[in-house]
Amino acid sequence: MEFTSGHKKLSKPIVPAKITGSMDMDEFAKSLENCAFGARRISQAVEIYYEMVSDPDVTKFFGLAGAMVPAGMRTIIADLIKDGYIDVLVTTGANMVHDTLEGLGLNHYKGTDQVDDKELHEEHIDRIYDVYLPDGHFEELEEFLLDVMEDLPKDKPVSIAEFMKVLGAGINNNDTILGAAYENDVPVYCPAFPDSVIGLHAYLYKEMNPLVVDAVADMHDFMDICWDAKKAGAVFVGGGVPKNYIFQSMLVTPKEFDYAIQLTMDTPQTGGLSGATLDEAISWGKVDSSAKFVTVYSDATITLPLMVGAVRSRVAKNRI
Amino acid sequence: MEFTSGHKKLSKPIVPAKITGSMDMDEFAKSLENCAFGARRISQAVEIYYEMVSDPDVTKFFGLAGAMVPAGMRTIIADLIKDGYIDVLVTTGANMVHDTLEGLGLNHYKGTDQVDDKELHEEHIDRIYDVYLPDGHFEELEEFLLDVMEDLPKDKPVSIAEFMKVLGAGINNNDTILGAAYENDVPVYCPAFPDSVIGLHAYLYKEMNPLVVDAVADMHDFMDICWDAKKAGAVFVGGGVPKNYIFQSMLVTPKEFDYAIQLTMDTPQTGGLSGATLDEAISWGKVDSSAKFVTVYSDATITLPLMVGAVRSRVAKNRI
Amino acid sequence: MEFTSGHKKLSKPIVPAKITGSMDMDEFAKSLENCAFGARRISQAVEIYYEMVSDPDVTKFFGLAGAMVPAGMRTIIADLIKDGYIDVLVTTGANMVHDTLEGLGLNHYKGTDQVDDKELHEEHIDRIYDVYLPDGHFEELEEFLLDVMEDLPKDKPVSIAEFMKVLGAGINNNDTILGAAYENDVPVYCPAFPDSVIGLHAYLYKEMNPLVVDAVADMHDFMDICWDAKKAGAVFVGGGVPKNYIFQSMLVTPKEFDYAIQLTMDTPQTGGLSGATLDEAISWGKVDSSAKFVTVYSDATITLPLMVGAVRSRVAKNRI
Amino acid sequence: MEFTSGHKKLSKPIVPAKITGSMDMDEFAKSLENCAFGARRISQAVEIYYEMVSDPDVTKFFGLAGAMVPAGMRTIIADLIKDGYIDVLVTTGANMVHDTLEGLGLNHYKGTDQVDDKELHEEHIDRIYDVYLPDGHFEELEEFLLDVMEDLPKDKPVSIAEFMKVLGAGINNNDTILGAAYENDVPVYCPAFPDSVIGLHAYLYKEMNPLVVDAVADMHDFMDICWDAKKAGAVFVGGGVPKNYIFQSMLVTPKEFDYAIQLTMDTPQTGGLSGATLDEAISWGKVDSSAKFVTVYSDATITLPLMVGAVRSRVAKNRI
Repeated sequence: MEFTSGHKKLSKPIVPAKITGSMDMDEFAKSLENCAFGARRISQAVEIYYEMVSDPDVTKFFGLAGAMVPAGMRTIIADLIKDGYIDVLVTTGANMVHDTLEGLGLNHYKGTDQVDDKELHEEHIDRIYDVYLPDGHFEELEEFLLDVMEDLPKDKPVSIAEFMKVLGAGINNNDTILGAAYENDVPVYCPAFPDSVIGLHAYLYKEMNPLVVDAVADMHDFMDICWDAKKAGAVFVGGGVPKNYIFQSMLVTPKEFDYAIQLTMDTPQTGGLSGATLDEAISWGKVDSSAKFVTVYSDATITLPLMVGAVRSRVAKNRI
Repeated sequence: MEFTSGHKKLSKPIVPAKITGSMDMDEFAKSLENCAFGARRISQAVEIYYEMVSDPDVTKFFGLAGAMVPAGMRTIIADLIKDGYIDVLVTTGANMVHDTLEGLGLNHYKGTDQVDDKELHEEHIDRIYDVYLPDGHFEELEEFLLDVMEDLPKDKPVSIAEFMKVLGAGINNNDTILGAAYENDVPVYCPAFPDSVIGLHAYLYKEMNPLVVDAVADMHDFMDICWDAKKAGAVFVGGGVPKNYIFQSMLVTPKEFDYAIQLTMDTPQTGGLSGATLDEAISWGKVDSSAKFVTVYSDATITLPLMVGAVRSRVAKNRI
Repeated sequence: MEFTSGHKKLSKPIVPAKITGSMDMDEFAKSLENCAFGARRISQAVEIYYEMVSDPDVTKFFGLAGAMVPAGMRTIIADLIKDGYIDVLVTTGANMVHDTLEGLGLNHYKGTDQVDDKELHEEHIDRIYDVYLPDGHFEELEEFLLDVMEDLPKDKPVSIAEFMKVLGAGINNNDTILGAAYENDVPVYCPAFPDSVIGLHAYLYKEMNPLVVDAVADMHDFMDICWDAKKAGAVFVGGGVPKNYIFQSMLVTPKEFDYAIQLTMDTPQTGGLSGATLDEAISWGKVDSSAKFVTVYSDATITLPLMVGAVRSRVAKNRI
Repeated sequence: MEFTSGHKKLSKPIVPAKITGSMDMDEFAKSLENCAFGARRISQAVEIYYEMVSDPDVTKFFGLAGAMVPAGMRTIIADLIKDGYIDVLVTTGANMVHDTLEGLGLNHYKGTDQVDDKELHEEHIDRIYDVYLPDGHFEELEEFLLDVMEDLPKDKPVSIAEFMKVLGAGINNNDTILGAAYENDVPVYCPAFPDSVIGLHAYLYKEMNPLVVDAVADMHDFMDICWDAKKAGAVFVGGGVPKNYIFQSMLVTPKEFDYAIQLTMDTPQTGGLSGATLDEAISWGKVDSSAKFVTVYSDATITLPLMVGAVRSRVAKNRI
């Protein structure tokens, strides 16, 4: 008798993935759909993201945390913006600093984490895990930022999103996140603005010049986007401020997210928001009880390209 | 011959910990000093923290990320402030929101992560891993914040640190972090100010009233603290914005941190700043090449009380 | 001057990945090669694995830990065996139990980790994270194992590898790992033999019948394989016993591994072997100082199919 | 109305921990009981372990995985055995190898993970994260093991537990795990026997001498212990083979564990047994539906001493 009720739970067999050398990215993702653990989750992420980007009624939020630009993820994000897959971007100052650097032609370099950091320090090389960049880059960035800040309105407080827009215009490079966002009218929010080299230079500029960056002035527009969304979907790369900010904004409205995808290595057990499950977000009313959502607990520098590749592959095939 | 050079590396034997039922916290921490892995690290953290707080020349920075107040760590932080163990606090909006709630007598509750979040949602209960709080708390918080914001200067932009100070004064409860900071003149920085319920209410207030929260106005004072420090020490609970903000500020000065302790579950392998080693910080010039530092990769809700308990025990014994 | 020495470290720029909808798996992996963090690592894993499987002089060891068969990875492993990509398999009893179940047509089922385990218990359903299987499966397995054990030699101790071979013959299903290994003469080692349902049934059988499973009898042949290897390469899915066993065996010989790939979520910081770096293995003489090796810290149910797909894609293209 | 049902969930407030310098270990653990996350869990672990060791009807199983002996945890385990806190030990070969080394006076040494492993290799130093040991130790171990194996019965297969017992007698050092187990008649199980240097030497010995180590011969006695237990409790340090072996044995009986404590850094999301929740174990019938159990996701080299210290402190106070 328990068996009867058990049967419902035993209706969908695990089908082992069959991996061939002739698969495209879409087929690869599909091959994992009846597997388990991360394999199933990445397959679900592709499914949900495909549905999200295929529906013109969905407003697409994108939260970008982690050192994703130094890791080589800039072009993926910029291309998503160009192709209309991101309507609103919330990110960290650090990602925008490194996006700006690359937009100015100031490269990051392949390094290693197995290195003597004292030696690097003497060589004026800064390390981000297995990425190096010369300290000198920041001097060039400083000059550029000083120029850009001249273009800011002087007579009134500027919002963070406006600051990012002016920065994007200044970079004038469609292959950067800020540049693509500027050209495609995608607003970029950076709630932890002071916490970055951009914030530092805003402070230094302000020591000598009139400048007020209003911390909350851009929230009005953000809420408008939330209110105006027929449906809402969010992709979170990492957690941090972008995840919380996107979620808390929706809380102000009577709406909830209909789609949510989280690509992270943070786990729920530490209790922090970054690793919190999307189920937890249901209790708060951030995610709808009937939403489609999934968290993939795996390195986002692998799962982001994989998800994007599979969705692009599916889009390309269905277009024909 | 290799043996000769090897000998230097083989001079300090591992001494297994002997744990008895009559140990005090200091003895417990000491018993782990010749162990390895996390055991050795927590013992080093106690050693370093004890040295840091014992030296009046050290300016003591404290970075508080993670959901530490909901987890029951409020009093530990407030007591550290009262006892002069924290000179500057950098934290997240969320911790200050929950500190304020508790200061108003609005409790968090023991819950479980094994729960149906849809049910919680219907019951108007918000979940933070295994902590619950009723949605209604936020209405009471709203009223309080509206009152407090009336005390803000109207005619000029207010800095985030000023906002936190006014909030601390308003809470008027020495057992909260903000209250203790206010009474003890410890500045509280919250660089991701917009990213919290406090930020949300600042925005809502601003819809109807004049209010400008200047995102970078408090950086001048922060830099002064950095410049004025004879020696500098930092404790990081979690990573996130507080860690980056404290480190980047020191970068502006010719100084570097002399002591650093990081209590975190984030690992370096994902490349994010939260899990980045303190060695990596040496390459940037955030941490001095000859600094004393350690990262304890373990749950901070265990290691923070443990470290504080052992240091307090050592202080108490050495005082006699 | 520091710049000069720095230059060497700044010679290989990070090239952001460009992800399109028309990429094959090989192109996808290549697109990540000049990125960082996990992206670079998975790309290196593909590179190393391709080199390993392309060189007929390399003896290819494969260590399989984790609940990989329940997760849907059985066919990938079986196909690697069939195609000559695995010369020696070292695995856990649990994976062989679940391989046998699937070989007998006893499915695993897609479940969820968000479930009341007391309810599952009453329904006689066993859970492996988000995989279910009915308790009844184990009764059918028992009957099968009792039959198979009749085919074991009665008059002398049987080695674990022989036991696995008889089991593979009994399953008689080329799509299982044990079946494919049997048909392709790939030895299967299971050093923790007692620690599985197979071990349990060996014990139960032994209560009534003569049976001695000799724990170390198959080590002679394993060492011979190590000694005979012109070059040696190893893939580790997870860590655990398979990783240690493969490495310790090579220690007995004057040789070391020339190639090593580790796909795991375990991190070095806890000090356990599962998360230990492959660099650490150099100190022991398990991995050669000039070996090509990489660890990918990411969910192996994603990275294993990804690596295999990219290598198969590359093989297919280069064959033409 | 929802409120009414909500009330039940909101009945136990979080009480922030108050940490003083005069606390004993028991008071420290108690101070965390109304906190959350890991803090609450370690407090529960102490509560459960105290109850387990105080009840003479409880048979106390202990699963020891991870590199705990090199990390300095040997004496803690040996003392638990001496004091009757462990009735049955299941562990890994590696821990017994390193226990034997220390028992022979062959030290482990404090090292660092920030080291060139090629240099260590040339210096004949083996590394276990931040622990070093000279390669030469293993030559002394070899001699000792050759002697010990002479004491094994020659005419019939020896079980793994018997092998461990003979080894414990040979070490003749009450401060080792094997020595204390021998003197206190605590059986030591090591299901992955071949997977260790002890297993390697058994194989080498067998090349020249008659020796059969029967992989499953000791399971009969283990099952008897399970059947005879009035109540059963288990502590798992790490997961791996010891966890699975202890759990699977109970499955053979109609009983289930009444108490279970897991100290681990492995998380459930990867689907492996090491990180599997103890809830999951309920579905299998390994843990009783009404059992008291907790998993502490934190470094076991910190949480094991902490739990043991607090329990010993409580025992000492309650004895008076």
